[in-house]
Amino acid sequence: MAEIYRGSTFAPVNIAVIKYWGKRDVKLNLPTNGSISVTLSQDDLRTHTTASCSTDYTKDALILNDEDQDISSARTQACLAELRKLRSDLESQDPSLPKLSSMHLKIVSKNNFPTAAGLASSAAGFAALVVAIARLYALDTVMSMSNLSRIARQGSGSACRSVLGGYVGWHKGEKEDGSDSVAYEVASASHWPEMRAVILVASDKKKDVSSTAGMQQTVASSTLFQHRIADVVPKRMKAMEKAIHARDFEAFATLTTKDSNNFHACCLDTQPPIFYMNDTSRAAVRICEAINATQEDKSVCAYTFDAGPNAVVYYLAENEHLVAGTFKTILGNVTGWEGPRGSAINTNASSGLPAGSETAAELLKKGVSRVILTSVGDGPRKTDEHLV
Amino acid sequence: MAEIYRGSTFAPVNIAVIKYWGKRDVKLNLPTNGSISVTLSQDDLRTHTTASCSTDYTKDALILNDEDQDISSARTQACLAELRKLRSDLESQDPSLPKLSSMHLKIVSKNNFPTAAGLASSAAGFAALVVAIARLYALDTVMSMSNLSRIARQGSGSACRSVLGGYVGWHKGEKEDGSDSVAYEVASASHWPEMRAVILVASDKKKDVSSTAGMQQTVASSTLFQHRIADVVPKRMKAMEKAIHARDFEAFATLTTKDSNNFHACCLDTQPPIFYMNDTSRAAVRICEAINATQEDKSVCAYTFDAGPNAVVYYLAENEHLVAGTFKTILGNVTGWEGPRGSAINTNASSGLPAGSETAAELLKKGVSRVILTSVGDGPRKTDEHLV
Repeated sequence: MAEIYRGSTFAPVNIAVIKYWGKRDVKLNLPTNGSISVTLSQDDLRTHTTASCSTDYTKDALILNDEDQDISSARTQACLAELRKLRSDLESQDPSLPKLSSMHLKIVSKNNFPTAAGLASSAAGFAALVVAIARLYALDTVMSMSNLSRIARQGSGSACRSVLGGYVGWHKGEKEDGSDSVAYEVASASHWPEMRAVILVASDKKKDVSSTAGMQQTVASSTLFQHRIADVVPKRMKAMEKAIHARDFEAFATLTTKDSNNFHACCLDTQPPIFYMNDTSRAAVRICEAINATQEDKSVCAYTFDAGPNAVVYYLAENEHLVAGTFKTILGNVTGWEGPRGSAINTNASSGLPAGSETAAELLKKGVSRVILTSVGDGPRKTDEHLV
Repeated sequence: MAEIYRGSTFAPVNIAVIKYWGKRDVKLNLPTNGSISVTLSQDDLRTHTTASCSTDYTKDALILNDEDQDISSARTQACLAELRKLRSDLESQDPSLPKLSSMHLKIVSKNNFPTAAGLASSAAGFAALVVAIARLYALDTVMSMSNLSRIARQGSGSACRSVLGGYVGWHKGEKEDGSDSVAYEVASASHWPEMRAVILVASDKKKDVSSTAGMQQTVASSTLFQHRIADVVPKRMKAMEKAIHARDFEAFATLTTKDSNNFHACCLDTQPPIFYMNDTSRAAVRICEAINATQEDKSVCAYTFDAGPNAVVYYLAENEHLVAGTFKTILGNVTGWEGPRGSAINTNASSGLPAGSETAAELLKKGVSRVILTSVGDGPRKTDEHLV
């Protein structure tokens, strides 16, 4: 048996606070606008990927959660081809290197979160794939993470943001070849480590339209969307970077909720309309508003919704009991509160729900199947724990 | 006992196809944009109002569906004051006229549709109030309906469109005093009498935010709304008038659904977001899309939603079985199908539901409490049937 070469990594999930929606180049995954996300802790949500190669392998293969995946998609192939080319260049420069670029690849991936949760797993998945292969090919020591993000972007747009930790921006870029459409660090996780999130996983997982198809329908048919990309997002990108630099949760919260609503408004303005938020999502919005209303002129939580009904609620560690405690009061019976952090959260069983949130609480209870407690986290973590 | 003077009218409901949302002058109800509606038949939906006056009356009173209403609101008072002033001018010109302008008014109103249905009854209500008083005061023979619409507008913006029948536009107007912000006839009901509608009345009547408050929140906070009023609506007004003049249902349907979605997108882009459509509304959208998808490149129905979850579905008489029949197949068990028209509608029990509409049909069944079958209709009808 020939030698098997291996490279492994963990990669994180990220949830945008300024949303990516719309491509100006479908093939290269070049976006119509910039975006900003928070990388979530890999202690809670992560993809673990091992890239391996061997002269014994007879074809490229991709296995996710023990199931064979189609590796032939143009996007996956674009990532593989570029990484192989870079490895081949290295091999030309140093003939002593093993000729990995000419071997077939076997890539094995596992998520530590339920796929059925409807979390955007393609971002973590493609980030892990690119970083694992880069490690296998010894490219990670010669290439910047920004350059790796450019490759991951071709697999799945938002994957480019999962190549970095903390608060991550994605430049829209101007060049036709996409070379300047890469991720950048707005701030590290340690700059503002107090950021927490509770994800409310909705029971109803039927996705309205895939985000790939949906965003191009929006680009083609929404009149409001043109205003979003030309006027709304560029201003918000600057304001959000400023809020993160200043650790200004109030500004962060306002921008996050406004941009989520603006994105879903553009989905609704699409022909035919796209609905990702459902009655459960709207109940989550109302609960967040009710929690904020308990404070005088201060926001303590901010909701955001991706292309699905799950709410992601951001808040600061100091408001754990206030924010997560309210959701625990309502949703104490679902999975996700076990473990030290969840167990330590006080419910407001004695003080009761925030004023006016009873109806929304009933709806939420009916529509949420589990919660996930998490926080801001770092970028891909190398590991020698191999899956092959 | 002193003589009682009376004037009575019926007035219709109207449902906009280019939506009114946003005031540029709150006191005068001057809109941020023009709008177009279809006046619905008074055989199905109407307000019946008698305005009366007598020297015996000791105060102004308004009774709706046998309940005393507050007549002191600035809007009602604005209508009464202007009508009294016009009557007073008439009385000055012709001293033989009874001095009705100095008498107190008693206005009695009844709707022939359930108030709980959540239909915009203020439009029919204020139109009926103004037309009934105009009749009592003998102003209706000397004033144009356009002029009466200007008065009704001050009671409730959309009331100005209920003063006319058929297909009705409302000029945004440019003047500060609102004198050019009046209703006009785009086409009479007889120009395109085949227009039908089925209203799906949603069980959940809890209104998110009153439209009066909601629209001003949108004006103040939605960035997309500015684009709507500056760019989107002016073009659609022209296109909709053209579609109505040409009896082009395809164009009418596209503009109607797009404008409804655009309006609700602006609601969602409001801070805090306003949700009028719920999961039932979205199911109605999907059923309409599925019905249209049974046709090759042709729309046979168009949905629109006002500030609430009820769907109003427009279609042509020739497609009664296809459109209303599908809803009867799904909702045959609710109130509204009795009577000759409803009974004559064939369900598609044998052919089954349109492909892919099963899930939406289940949701619709859960969320709709009654249907109302109606059609385009004429303007306010005078009557000598008095309620006082």
